[in-house]
Amino acid sequence: MSAYPAKHHFAKAAANLGASAGAIFVRGGETIVHPDSDTEYDFHQDSNFYYLSGIAEPGFAAAYDIATGTAILFVRHVSADEAVWIGVPPALEDYRRSHGFDEAHYVHDVGAVLDALKPTVVYMLPHHAADQLSTALELAVDRAQLLPAVHEARVFKDDAEIEIMRKANRISSDAHLELMKQIRGKMNEAEVRGRFVGMVLAGGCSYEAYGSIAAGGRNAAVLHYTANNQPLASDDEMILVDAGGTYQCYASDITRTWPIGPAFTPECRAIYQIVLDMQLAVLAACAPHRQWEDMHQLASRVAAEGLLRLGILKGDLDGIMANYVVGYFMPHGIGHLIGIDTHDVGGYPQGGERINRPGVRYLRARREMLPRMAFTVEPGLYFVDAILADAKADPAVAPFIDFDKVAAYRKVGGVRVEDNIVITESGHDNLTTCPKSIADIEAIRSAALRV
Amino acid sequence: MSAYPAKHHFAKAAANLGASAGAIFVRGGETIVHPDSDTEYDFHQDSNFYYLSGIAEPGFAAAYDIATGTAILFVRHVSADEAVWIGVPPALEDYRRSHGFDEAHYVHDVGAVLDALKPTVVYMLPHHAADQLSTALELAVDRAQLLPAVHEARVFKDDAEIEIMRKANRISSDAHLELMKQIRGKMNEAEVRGRFVGMVLAGGCSYEAYGSIAAGGRNAAVLHYTANNQPLASDDEMILVDAGGTYQCYASDITRTWPIGPAFTPECRAIYQIVLDMQLAVLAACAPHRQWEDMHQLASRVAAEGLLRLGILKGDLDGIMANYVVGYFMPHGIGHLIGIDTHDVGGYPQGGERINRPGVRYLRARREMLPRMAFTVEPGLYFVDAILADAKADPAVAPFIDFDKVAAYRKVGGVRVEDNIVITESGHDNLTTCPKSIADIEAIRSAALRV
Repeated sequence: MSAYPAKHHFAKAAANLGASAGAIFVRGGETIVHPDSDTEYDFHQDSNFYYLSGIAEPGFAAAYDIATGTAILFVRHVSADEAVWIGVPPALEDYRRSHGFDEAHYVHDVGAVLDALKPTVVYMLPHHAADQLSTALELAVDRAQLLPAVHEARVFKDDAEIEIMRKANRISSDAHLELMKQIRGKMNEAEVRGRFVGMVLAGGCSYEAYGSIAAGGRNAAVLHYTANNQPLASDDEMILVDAGGTYQCYASDITRTWPIGPAFTPECRAIYQIVLDMQLAVLAACAPHRQWEDMHQLASRVAAEGLLRLGILKGDLDGIMANYVVGYFMPHGIGHLIGIDTHDVGGYPQGGERINRPGVRYLRARREMLPRMAFTVEPGLYFVDAILADAKADPAVAPFIDFDKVAAYRKVGGVRVEDNIVITESGHDNLTTCPKSIADIEAIRSAALRV
Repeated sequence: MSAYPAKHHFAKAAANLGASAGAIFVRGGETIVHPDSDTEYDFHQDSNFYYLSGIAEPGFAAAYDIATGTAILFVRHVSADEAVWIGVPPALEDYRRSHGFDEAHYVHDVGAVLDALKPTVVYMLPHHAADQLSTALELAVDRAQLLPAVHEARVFKDDAEIEIMRKANRISSDAHLELMKQIRGKMNEAEVRGRFVGMVLAGGCSYEAYGSIAAGGRNAAVLHYTANNQPLASDDEMILVDAGGTYQCYASDITRTWPIGPAFTPECRAIYQIVLDMQLAVLAACAPHRQWEDMHQLASRVAAEGLLRLGILKGDLDGIMANYVVGYFMPHGIGHLIGIDTHDVGGYPQGGERINRPGVRYLRARREMLPRMAFTVEPGLYFVDAILADAKADPAVAPFIDFDKVAAYRKVGGVRVEDNIVITESGHDNLTTCPKSIADIEAIRSAALRV
């Protein structure tokens, strides 16, 4: 296994800082314990620290001398007594080599090592404490510039990161496919989520990238449904599964929606096909130098056309688009940057502002697509009672909606289809591999339910 | 489903306070978000708050008027906008009834409701903030007395708690049994832990009660081994699985150790039988009015006898016991209280002190066993190089150990067998149901591996 590219990631951050001298100093996360208890939360490394160091354990720190390009790792010291309980850790030199640093010391030497560098400025992250720094260095701390510099470095994935994200997607896609094969009507949503988590952990993921959603029937109309505790009531319903595993600290974020029975009902099929068309249109359009917010508009237009065909919308397409009518059916953005964080950093650089209109106001990124950016593409259509009541009450929007038709499709609940892609020089690379066409899904479900 | 016994649990805590007036005021936990990210940690309710309220969601609070026995719930207010994302929550009255409170209000009414009670003293937990309390009430806060009163209430489980713990144990025991049936050599430890987690979540548990241990071969000699990322190398080795699910906020904590092949090797069998004998002896002795630390001594004596028979120990039994020689092979306590927390509260009441000798210094409880106390019974024997080096260097201990024999058994790694019990009027009720006899385990493994 090649070493973690710590020096390369520090160098990218330093280049974004535009500084030719000074030191970067970052701290890793610490274990968090439940209040009045010795039970620990699952450890999740500070994302910026992981990016720079590749260290997934608690209690580390790292520094980078910008002028010389020297990367320095500070390793948590494990006492002999502690080693009896947690095992003998790797030696300093092993850590140094496996993570691609120039030097490795123990964390209790942070003060001395940084003092010896005599940096004119110490770039730190806003949420990191200056403990252990000498008074002179503490006075030289700059907490403003490093965060955007690291964020911008994280936006552009290098080849090794893309391969890790591909692996996270492969493990999670395989688990989605297995669910399509294993799940039966009357099972509980908890069974769906539990099996998913079990499979991604067994496949080598560290944890769920986010609170999984396993929403049967109308529960899919609750956008952040995480109760996951109701039985799958009817073969005429669908289940929406939004779940991804984190592999080597990189998230995957995948949604599939499929029938609990062997086939989609006509209403479910019609809505599903529109959502899939939205996704395929956006995927075909993803390429360098296009604007991410235009992808949201493209998905909205395809949705408007589809909902017009079904008669759920009425009137002229331009009026529907001008009044953001689709936002009442897709109240979230078309997707977001993804990487170490599920909702990854860098979506709104240089003071970019959100557009305050239905649906698009939740768009988590507004910038030009460029090679090596990773996005989710996740169109959806939902029948949310409260949102549709708002639409009915809005005289600019209500005339475009046939509420009798809405009532006929309400049982569909919601549909979302979500893949993870990386922008390439010529278009995109889709990391997500589980089936999504109606034909494939029905073949898998009907074969599974025949057994 | 009957209501949560919130009033009963508040009354138990109030009785332990010995107060006839004043109010108890407790806060529930809040969601914790990763630094510089919107990813949330899995929510875990504050254990004392859960005990009193039965509320497993973030953002709640509760109060109890001691003189009148009035229990008051403060419910998190969910706005209409928020409800679109997380669903429409139950009404105040639904919360009140399902949790057995006399009144329910929203959390923004904490100040007004507590002021109206005009309590002479407000009993709070040390780690809870006094925000929202009027200056008068803030001056009346007592942070010293409530914590031990709630802890002592939590030590004695009522029937409903015991049934929940039985269910946690049943789900987790079933998962342990399934692992014995499903796991094959060459699989990775991650597969073992992943399948376990998947099964307990699918069975209705909320999360792992603690960081699971799936330790193959020599990894079982690392007492808190949680890396869980090595392949199961050889059929001649065992795997130690220490894992339990949390059901309705109550933990289970179960360990089984079994061969990767169809049968134990002679060395593994010999050590396993001693550990099982230790556990059976302690279980037979568990009854009201006996001292928990005597159970540790009993297990040590059975271990000493067994290790003498194998020739790993030598010399006289009394000398072995007087010099705590077994502590070098079982460097942890015989067990701990269990309940909402895995290592539950109340183990050292009234200033009880730890005994600073090998093994027993880690005993997490020193008190008289009484009905309705729940304990783990978890003897183990391990061959930890660093600890055995300490033994060799100690002239009081080394003469009792045959280090050539130790070398012959080193490959065993470690064995632990752990059940969860509740003390009854006449003895104990074992909540753990998965097999542990050598005959049962070999029958399961050999049948599984024939498939």
